Amino acid sequence: GVKAVLEGMECEVLRRYPDSNVTLLVDSLAELYKVKPEQVFVGVGSDDVIGMCFLTFFASDEPILFPNITYSFYDVWANLFRIPYTQIPLDENLRIHKEDYRIPNGGIVIANPNAPTSIGESIEFIEDIVKHNPDSIVIVDEAYVDFGGETALPLVEKYPNVIVVQTFSKSRSMAGMRIGYAISSPELIGYLNAVKQSYNSYTMNTTSIIAGVEAVKDVEYWNTCCKKVMDTRAWSKKALEELGFTMPDSKTNFLFAKHRSVSAESIFKALRERNIFVRYFNKPIINEYLRITIGTDSEMQELMDALKEILGE
Amino acid sequence: GVKAVLEGMECEVLRRYPDSNVTLLVDSLAELYKVKPEQVFVGVGSDDVIGMCFLTFFASDEPILFPNITYSFYDVWANLFRIPYTQIPLDENLRIHKEDYRIPNGGIVIANPNAPTSIGESIEFIEDIVKHNPDSIVIVDEAYVDFGGETALPLVEKYPNVIVVQTFSKSRSMAGMRIGYAISSPELIGYLNAVKQSYNSYTMNTTSIIAGVEAVKDVEYWNTCCKKVMDTRAWSKKALEELGFTMPDSKTNFLFAKHRSVSAESIFKALRERNIFVRYFNKPIINEYLRITIGTDSEMQELMDALKEILGE
Repeated sequence: GVKAVLEGMECEVLRRYPDSNVTLLVDSLAELYKVKPEQVFVGVGSDDVIGMCFLTFFASDEPILFPNITYSFYDVWANLFRIPYTQIPLDENLRIHKEDYRIPNGGIVIANPNAPTSIGESIEFIEDIVKHNPDSIVIVDEAYVDFGGETALPLVEKYPNVIVVQTFSKSRSMAGMRIGYAISSPELIGYLNAVKQSYNSYTMNTTSIIAGVEAVKDVEYWNTCCKKVMDTRAWSKKALEELGFTMPDSKTNFLFAKHRSVSAESIFKALRERNIFVRYFNKPIINEYLRITIGTDSEMQELMDALKEILGE
Repeated sequence: GVKAVLEGMECEVLRRYPDSNVTLLVDSLAELYKVKPEQVFVGVGSDDVIGMCFLTFFASDEPILFPNITYSFYDVWANLFRIPYTQIPLDENLRIHKEDYRIPNGGIVIANPNAPTSIGESIEFIEDIVKHNPDSIVIVDEAYVDFGGETALPLVEKYPNVIVVQTFSKSRSMAGMRIGYAISSPELIGYLNAVKQSYNSYTMNTTSIIAGVEAVKDVEYWNTCCKKVMDTRAWSKKALEELGFTMPDSKTNFLFAKHRSVSAESIFKALRERNIFVRYFNKPIINEYLRITIGTDSEMQELMDALKEILGE
């Protein structure tokens, strides 16, 4: 659908400024997720959306809270906007403990599923955090939710303090278009729009809007893609386990795997020599793991073949 | 050129994140303006670029300076980022006085040509401000420069404290794509990139990059468009003068016109009733003027016909 609509796009539309309210895309997302258009904010990727949330909502003297191992931009935005923050440690199984988020705070950000751990928590888990923090805004970053995670979207109708953020860059395979969105109460979305309009009214270009609307319509293709990734993930996990890796149950489009005897760093380097790129984090705790993005079946097979060689199995 | 490249675009490229360094577009702008690639920063329209400059460079306790009548977003960004500012009054002929910018300050922003006055100042005028403020960063917002203004780009090689910002939304007729850029010293551009990469690495989508590169190549088409606007502006100015308007010599794609006897507000309303939209600002001094964007020859002729009726000439 996106391919067709971009090919058929009338170039003349690019002469004029895009619609700063991005009405077409907001309306189609509202329809898909069964919320009101006033509950949808769109931006240039979820980085733009979450950055705008930080700028708009995190102005307390109390620190904002997020896990110590999570998406790497939260502390960067906090530093940039001079927002105090506390990073709450994951437990030894890389899990978030909801009880840790019952301390005074100026806001909370939870990536669910979390990255790079790949672990997804239930909606009850998120609800517990939201419920215990009625005076804080809780951002739930659901970049990976479509790969088997559980969305917090139903909480939006019950709690005015939760913001669910999603993206077109993962499950919709449109990272090149830069589209992200937030769904929340009309009140919070109104504030986000006010700040956005006072900073840069015209951020999403016309091609993004046109392509985004079409992608939202294309539910069947989207589901097929998600299923493909999850199927490939399932057999890849088994294959990795047979090679001596352990890993949490992934709810994302990657696996976070640790080998029983060979260090992550040496596997990372050996793969890189073969032009196979996985992610290795040179940081305590997670330096035992590799983040392996799910590619096509044949790409994953190449990875398994290379690992067999490297591990001498 | 843009039309052809967008039609031929391989949709598959949209699956992946765009190049966060936007190398292709940076390189082509560097070549066009005969500077080094390290001297070019690109963003999502000049609003994004100037907003990023405010965030990156304006952190002094001294107020930043800009004219009291100028692009309406400067004070909005200053308020948003809590940057103190002083608005320096234009004189009674709507001119900026360079001598007014010799007071302690935390930075300076000059739109040249200025909006909505349409007046352009010389490069010597800008150089005087830059030279008298060696410890301040001076942003020259040249959104309209290609319609007969004089660019400050040659100052970039002489002074490390000047940043020239331009856009694809006016003279390149690509407002829908959202492309703006800054040209400055490698040092300042380096800081801008550092802040940008720590906020949102992937702001320009792939279609913008592809279309932008092509537009830069298309120098002849660009010059033709600028000339067309300037030609239409020339006869439109004469026609308006014959109808009793006076206006400064415009270096932009609009005219800022005042009628000798009929109020701007009443002309604005009468035009609006005829579905002709010009801009009227309900603010002291400029409420005597209409900002009339240059359209096609036939659009301008329609405007003149409507004005003849309204003014009863």
